[in-house]
Amino acid sequence: MQINTESRDVFYVSDGTAITCETLGHVLLGQFSFSANEKTFPFVESLDKVEDLVREIENSFTRTGEKPLVFFSIVLPDIRQVLVKSSAHCYDVLEDLVKKMQNDLQMEPQPKLQRSRSVKRDSDTYFDRIAAIEYTLAHDDGITLKGIEKADIVLLGVSRSGKTPTSLYMAMQFGLRVVNYPFIDDDIKAMRLLPEFEIHRHKLFGLTIDAQRLTEIRENRLSGSDYASDEQCRLELASVEALFRREAIPYINTSSLSVEEISTRILEKAGLKRRLV
Amino acid sequence: MQINTESRDVFYVSDGTAITCETLGHVLLGQFSFSANEKTFPFVESLDKVEDLVREIENSFTRTGEKPLVFFSIVLPDIRQVLVKSSAHCYDVLEDLVKKMQNDLQMEPQPKLQRSRSVKRDSDTYFDRIAAIEYTLAHDDGITLKGIEKADIVLLGVSRSGKTPTSLYMAMQFGLRVVNYPFIDDDIKAMRLLPEFEIHRHKLFGLTIDAQRLTEIRENRLSGSDYASDEQCRLELASVEALFRREAIPYINTSSLSVEEISTRILEKAGLKRRLV
Repeated sequence: MQINTESRDVFYVSDGTAITCETLGHVLLGQFSFSANEKTFPFVESLDKVEDLVREIENSFTRTGEKPLVFFSIVLPDIRQVLVKSSAHCYDVLEDLVKKMQNDLQMEPQPKLQRSRSVKRDSDTYFDRIAAIEYTLAHDDGITLKGIEKADIVLLGVSRSGKTPTSLYMAMQFGLRVVNYPFIDDDIKAMRLLPEFEIHRHKLFGLTIDAQRLTEIRENRLSGSDYASDEQCRLELASVEALFRREAIPYINTSSLSVEEISTRILEKAGLKRRLV
Repeated sequence: MQINTESRDVFYVSDGTAITCETLGHVLLGQFSFSANEKTFPFVESLDKVEDLVREIENSFTRTGEKPLVFFSIVLPDIRQVLVKSSAHCYDVLEDLVKKMQNDLQMEPQPKLQRSRSVKRDSDTYFDRIAAIEYTLAHDDGITLKGIEKADIVLLGVSRSGKTPTSLYMAMQFGLRVVNYPFIDDDIKAMRLLPEFEIHRHKLFGLTIDAQRLTEIRENRLSGSDYASDEQCRLELASVEALFRREAIPYINTSSLSVEEISTRILEKAGLKRRLV
């Protein structure tokens, strides 16, 4: 039995998708310095499933000599009980807050099987989300600017500045219709905005990135190319940023941000409302 | 001052993206029966910002006669203090669990500004995620099957069965490379799998949906078309499901599931490992 204090086994367990347990668990682990071997167990709705899980917990304990951590949310009492009796540190991600809310609001909670946020039988929500994803796919990477009047926002930036993942995330999470348009050589040389953008100026938002990071990303795609060269990256970024400033287009630097952070910051800076809650 | 007990103002507040507060808050609200007017305040990192927020809280309290609910996560003590003194029911989404972990693990937490899960300076994670998104975009809706050998999974289903949003979600959240292929008339008439799929049988996964739901979704796209007709939908679904069974291709019915749930169930049924944690 080899003890390892540097790393712990961590399980996310739910009778739903376990997305909530994962999201919260990641942030909680971020507050501590050990590294984690993470594993997710969604839809633990039967005794068989929870018993399999408990076996895995006990194996982990025996193997590592450390109790694994379990972040869980389970409504069914019998299943919950089997889990919390195991040799793990078990953390119910909802319990304490539900109790506080119950007390503050003087309302009885009705525990429900967890549904992830976008599950609303209200099918408008469904259609809004699908429509946003389809619109955004159809307007990715400058494929077309037709229907730009329906866009919630138009992202501009050089190749590899993060436009596509940001656009898709904004469509999927916020239900927004995003056009993204890459600055290519001609635009960069001409240092101009397409005339099509003129009447949509208020929708324009720029992405920029550090030259060094851009080179790294482009190298990963086309190693040794001019396209990836430090000189080319600097040139493109300098002129695009100059253009953003000249045209008073708001922009952010994506170098050290995740797709989630870029999207949230754009939403905030552009004062955009989510279409999905 | 008009009192409204049916609906409450709810604020998600964080010095990060507030994704964790939103995710957890949505599930918590799901346990109670009132409806919520939700608003998110990300990146509350300055006294100015928290003071604006507190003004909004006090306005809500005066306007509705009910304390709004605040689900928050804030590291900076001065900012936190301003918030918790406001006329809101404030819920720190991390505090209780961090204390329990600290006690169980006998480790001191190091509070950090929240970073959403995919922010790891480790750039492999970044590249894996981007590569998965690009691969999946390039293989959406049967555009091409070139490179199918690199796919983690191949989704099959009739038009509008949920393939595209599911594929993109799996790429973005799990870092998986997804091919999705729509069954079109010829395949349906011929009731056959493309020969290209033969050596990748183990990667095939089917999506199906209730005929009534499919009609509803297709009506929303092409109202009154044969494509959307109940008869056409039934015909396509019957033959595709027969094909799935005959070829022993695992499949799920997406009718009452969110994109998150579909993706998580597929991951589970197909025994796929996430590429991103």
